[in-house]
Amino acid sequence: MYLLRCIECGEEYETDSLYTCTKCGGLLEVIVDLSNADFRLDGNNITLWKYRSLIPVKTDPVTLFEGGTPLYSLKTGKSSRVYIKHEGLNPSGSFKDRGMTVGITKALELKKRSVMCASTGNTSASMAMYAARASLKAYVILPSGKVALGKLTQAMMHGARVIAIKGNFDAALKIVRKLTERNEIYLLNSINPFRLEGQKTIAYEIVDQLGYVPDAVFVPIGNAGNISAIYKGFRELKEAGYTDNIPEMVGVQAEGADPVYKAFVQNKDEIEPVSNPETIATAIRIGNPVNAKKALQAIYDSGGRVLRVTDSEIVEAQKFLAKQGVGVEPASASSLAGFLKEELDYDTVVCIATGNLLKDPEEIIRVCEKPMEVSANPEIIEKLL
Amino acid sequence: MYLLRCIECGEEYETDSLYTCTKCGGLLEVIVDLSNADFRLDGNNITLWKYRSLIPVKTDPVTLFEGGTPLYSLKTGKSSRVYIKHEGLNPSGSFKDRGMTVGITKALELKKRSVMCASTGNTSASMAMYAARASLKAYVILPSGKVALGKLTQAMMHGARVIAIKGNFDAALKIVRKLTERNEIYLLNSINPFRLEGQKTIAYEIVDQLGYVPDAVFVPIGNAGNISAIYKGFRELKEAGYTDNIPEMVGVQAEGADPVYKAFVQNKDEIEPVSNPETIATAIRIGNPVNAKKALQAIYDSGGRVLRVTDSEIVEAQKFLAKQGVGVEPASASSLAGFLKEELDYDTVVCIATGNLLKDPEEIIRVCEKPMEVSANPEIIEKLL
Repeated sequence: MYLLRCIECGEEYETDSLYTCTKCGGLLEVIVDLSNADFRLDGNNITLWKYRSLIPVKTDPVTLFEGGTPLYSLKTGKSSRVYIKHEGLNPSGSFKDRGMTVGITKALELKKRSVMCASTGNTSASMAMYAARASLKAYVILPSGKVALGKLTQAMMHGARVIAIKGNFDAALKIVRKLTERNEIYLLNSINPFRLEGQKTIAYEIVDQLGYVPDAVFVPIGNAGNISAIYKGFRELKEAGYTDNIPEMVGVQAEGADPVYKAFVQNKDEIEPVSNPETIATAIRIGNPVNAKKALQAIYDSGGRVLRVTDSEIVEAQKFLAKQGVGVEPASASSLAGFLKEELDYDTVVCIATGNLLKDPEEIIRVCEKPMEVSANPEIIEKLL
Repeated sequence: MYLLRCIECGEEYETDSLYTCTKCGGLLEVIVDLSNADFRLDGNNITLWKYRSLIPVKTDPVTLFEGGTPLYSLKTGKSSRVYIKHEGLNPSGSFKDRGMTVGITKALELKKRSVMCASTGNTSASMAMYAARASLKAYVILPSGKVALGKLTQAMMHGARVIAIKGNFDAALKIVRKLTERNEIYLLNSINPFRLEGQKTIAYEIVDQLGYVPDAVFVPIGNAGNISAIYKGFRELKEAGYTDNIPEMVGVQAEGADPVYKAFVQNKDEIEPVSNPETIATAIRIGNPVNAKKALQAIYDSGGRVLRVTDSEIVEAQKFLAKQGVGVEPASASSLAGFLKEELDYDTVVCIATGNLLKDPEEIIRVCEKPMEVSANPEIIEKLL
């Protein structure tokens, strides 16, 4: 029904229970049997599990009705038709839910009793929510200096055990890898290839909603898993005979966290990590993206590119979206910021918004005008309107 | 196609542009022509505007794809089948979006140039978001002492002008009523009868999703508009011939803000306002609910009741939901808290969750266990798992 293949050495495995290639340590990709596809891209009843025939699970999914997110049209003043796919309207408020519904289902299939990740934000929120739904214990490991409680409220409320270690993010990830070698704990960081199998449905939904393949898809790049997954989705639709073409995959990075951009402009296949990444867009503040190699492959193969935007361009795009009724966190706005910055000529463009405005209220308070205070006099107030 | 009728004196109006009865000042209700109903309750493609034939608008709606919210099953250990309808997964994170998609559409129909409300929370967030989508100016008036910026982030980001007045909430509302007498500004507080026309679709969706009418629906009561609207929806389905019965409408109030509860136990039709209402569930911290009379009618007519829960019961229910993967703000958990508290014997119960967990992160930080800090040693951490 499906197998795991190493993207480095090509080794294939008929097992679910590997995170990386045992031969060379490379990332694994899930190869699904496209002849199983049994859905119709007719615009009806769109949810992630509509596409179950191409999602590599064997049991009934653990679902919170993720996916089916809106595709909003935008007025940009440019000649392209521009849409934004608002992944912030998933149950936990970010696109991570697509990967977690699959990852948590896989954890149950593998008879795991608990799940674990290193994360300070959206990944931990989503994992905790789905683990709660499945009655699995959830553990979140993170660097003690970086504990912003506001970013952890969902993980805490959904009952995850949050453990802050003295060390940096790499140390936290190392501990997660070490502890998940034990059979009972399932690793749900983005190295897990099954998470991308959920995320690829973004591509399926775009075609299902539009009725055709757009010319380009703009995706924020943080850990670089999402752009890889979306590309895989478009590739599978084409190979399965649903579509005839694949959009240009355009990655967008923040200036202070731009290793994939740098690799792209130098025409390289691999990144050099950026130490001390810095950007207002915390969800893509990542210096050493796990899936960079997959992402660069997707970008080159699709004839796409990588763009780089400044923090102020990100905030401008975030406000631009909010003023059309679309509330997103800063990282989400980077995709549109990339599109608005460049003179690119496409008929139809889809930008991916990855997370909800409510994910980062503190940033909003910083960037918005404060309320004004006046006396309770209608005549005075009338003059202010 | 539809008309406005006063719930006090029965006067009828064939106009859209009234907020209250010009004869007696009573609340107005929209009477729609049920013979227009042209949707099927077949479980397919559920969104609010599926039911457009019974929603009193004349032009294309201003929509952000609200509605179609999940109906999650819950494990409660009781014999009833229990579901929660998660209205926190609407675009702005609360059920208010259902009313606002209709209210903002109506504002455009009436050629208004701006909209206004007095609100410190979910109403202003939703109004600002939909006003932005429609390119209408939005004004939020609130008491200056009560400006918690965290609750206003959405309104601010979506470009609403927030004006804090020296005075209490009643003074703010009075100013809104005064300023919206001018023709160009549309009033979107819950006195506006068209908002309830959006909210009634919660009832339509419950039947569409379940395939039948539940025995009881539990609804948090703040301003009391939602329970009135949901009851109206069930009544319309029955009158239109879709269903044979109406569920018991069970309202739930917080102990510190319980005027509707008090009226109910005294078998009265009207409330006595509670001054200085107090509860952790800020979204239902209302002492003088605008729609109390409509709500009490709905409760009596359906054979329902009103329950009262403590803040700690609310927090317990909020955690209970979170541990099943459903993230809600405190007010939302009051409906389930009411159900869990009483020994009520129903086959099928639906509880309404009105807002998203992310609406009140500060409350979560107060009620949850803090992360623990340890050294980066896998052996030590292993012992903690």
